[in-house]
Amino acid sequence: MVSVASFFDLVEQDLNQLTENVKNLVGAKHQVLRLAAEYLFEAGGKRIRPALVLLMARATSPSGEPTEKHRRLAEITEMIHTASLVHDDVIDVSDVRRGAETVNYLFGNKVAVLAGDFLFAKSSIYLARLGSLEVVELLATVIDHLAEGEMLQIKNQFDTTLAFDEYIEKSFYKTASLMANSCRAAAVLSDMPEELCDAAYNYGRHLGIAFQVVDDLLDFTSSTETLGKPAASDLRQGQITAPVLYALQEFPELSILIQREFKLNGDIEQALDWVKKSQGLIRTKELANQHIKQAILAVEKFPPSPARQAMIDLTDYVLKRVF
Amino acid sequence: MVSVASFFDLVEQDLNQLTENVKNLVGAKHQVLRLAAEYLFEAGGKRIRPALVLLMARATSPSGEPTEKHRRLAEITEMIHTASLVHDDVIDVSDVRRGAETVNYLFGNKVAVLAGDFLFAKSSIYLARLGSLEVVELLATVIDHLAEGEMLQIKNQFDTTLAFDEYIEKSFYKTASLMANSCRAAAVLSDMPEELCDAAYNYGRHLGIAFQVVDDLLDFTSSTETLGKPAASDLRQGQITAPVLYALQEFPELSILIQREFKLNGDIEQALDWVKKSQGLIRTKELANQHIKQAILAVEKFPPSPARQAMIDLTDYVLKRVF
Repeated sequence: MVSVASFFDLVEQDLNQLTENVKNLVGAKHQVLRLAAEYLFEAGGKRIRPALVLLMARATSPSGEPTEKHRRLAEITEMIHTASLVHDDVIDVSDVRRGAETVNYLFGNKVAVLAGDFLFAKSSIYLARLGSLEVVELLATVIDHLAEGEMLQIKNQFDTTLAFDEYIEKSFYKTASLMANSCRAAAVLSDMPEELCDAAYNYGRHLGIAFQVVDDLLDFTSSTETLGKPAASDLRQGQITAPVLYALQEFPELSILIQREFKLNGDIEQALDWVKKSQGLIRTKELANQHIKQAILAVEKFPPSPARQAMIDLTDYVLKRVF
Repeated sequence: MVSVASFFDLVEQDLNQLTENVKNLVGAKHQVLRLAAEYLFEAGGKRIRPALVLLMARATSPSGEPTEKHRRLAEITEMIHTASLVHDDVIDVSDVRRGAETVNYLFGNKVAVLAGDFLFAKSSIYLARLGSLEVVELLATVIDHLAEGEMLQIKNQFDTTLAFDEYIEKSFYKTASLMANSCRAAAVLSDMPEELCDAAYNYGRHLGIAFQVVDDLLDFTSSTETLGKPAASDLRQGQITAPVLYALQEFPELSILIQREFKLNGDIEQALDWVKKSQGLIRTKELANQHIKQAILAVEKFPPSPARQAMIDLTDYVLKRVF
């Protein structure tokens, strides 16, 4: 049994360098943007996305080391992720993320919208310099999907008729697309054959969906302190996630509380009680597990290497957050 | 003397097609984004930016007609411009643009931030499909500059120590960069030699600066109905533009009113009076004229053609808005 942190060992040095590089890429022309950027990149992000790119790079590059282009790709991935978080916080009027104040809360909506645009723009410029139109399109598609995911999330608020497929689709757009497309981009930069580029994509896709499913589960099982936000805050905001979809099958009355947006006293407590009494949490774990298994099948198409092993260990880490 | 509208004749059909194409490119998956997009592309924009790209395409392509890639580039240019307007209106909390309600006013900040991100993302995807990394980087730089220009505008509010160079720099970022880089991109897609790519860039750059300078002048000389916003609204918001910079040289007391953000009764009227009494308006016209002359010099490096003539006529149109 591999220790949970071990997959990070292989890329720890790379990741430390990455934070410095991203700050340099963002530049320091405007004090307020620099502050926003520094704040962002130090706000305790898990950096699982750049770690993933760097591991896929190691598993596919002939030297077993990430190339300079791979490192830039990892940085760009983190910039795109950060930009989308900043805009999401404006859209959701969030004051707190990961237990720290958001950019819009600290610096106002103006700076937050601009900081996001700025990061998206810088990532596009650096993407072009990687010299691959395919990689540009893969990562531009991610930005499109991030907006699409946020759109679906708004559209489906308090909608108890949400189909399970739509939930998975939204999870792909919001979380898995970035992992899928950036893993594929790492394989493309390593000139992998099409079949292995697909395998890289599928690994990222299934890992990403599992990651989102686990996040949706943690919303019900973690304490406020661990999450840095109130428990069941997704449900309070009308997000219909896997545990809720499963619980609705056992307790159809739950839909009444959701549809009236928990307006009556005790609604949210009753809803939480039903979700916890139902098979929803255990079935959600099982769903995450299924996607993890498919992620492992995909990554096993690559020849064995320490990086491949680290990517398998990483799936364990994603599940460890709940099991 | 050519009629003001004549330069549009050459590209009128192209532009009608463009509006349809842009709507298709944006897609219609989400009702609210589709509404926002339709609203945007029909809100009476001058479409001077895609007209510019299409004229530069005609002046440089061997057939004298825009290629399919040129048409896509023109569409992308309009998408990027529109995305930046949508985000600017969120940032400036504007309710009205061009006499019509803004996206944030009609659909809320959430949709406006997402609609902008969505348009930026779609433009990056279509850019990659043009098959030129140089063109991707040119247009990604535009998005960066648009954020930079808005940042400078916020930073310099009510700052009467603003240097003239900084005013020109901000005008370049906000308005001229898109024209400069998209004109260059049209020449790049036509495989023009470096010298003519530079000429295309310089034409767009000087035309764009003149366009912004004229806009800044119109803020003082046009009626509320023509502008679709209150007269001198830039100054009220603390924007220090060319007429104000010139007026400050003659009436240094103006800076006191600006620095106290027109807090006292009669401040704004007194400020307007000084700007109008000063040589500011006439010197601003002269400034626009200088940039128009440099734009013409640049475009004259191309061999004579109806499209080249139209680009020269277009400079006349920019000035006609004031003279």
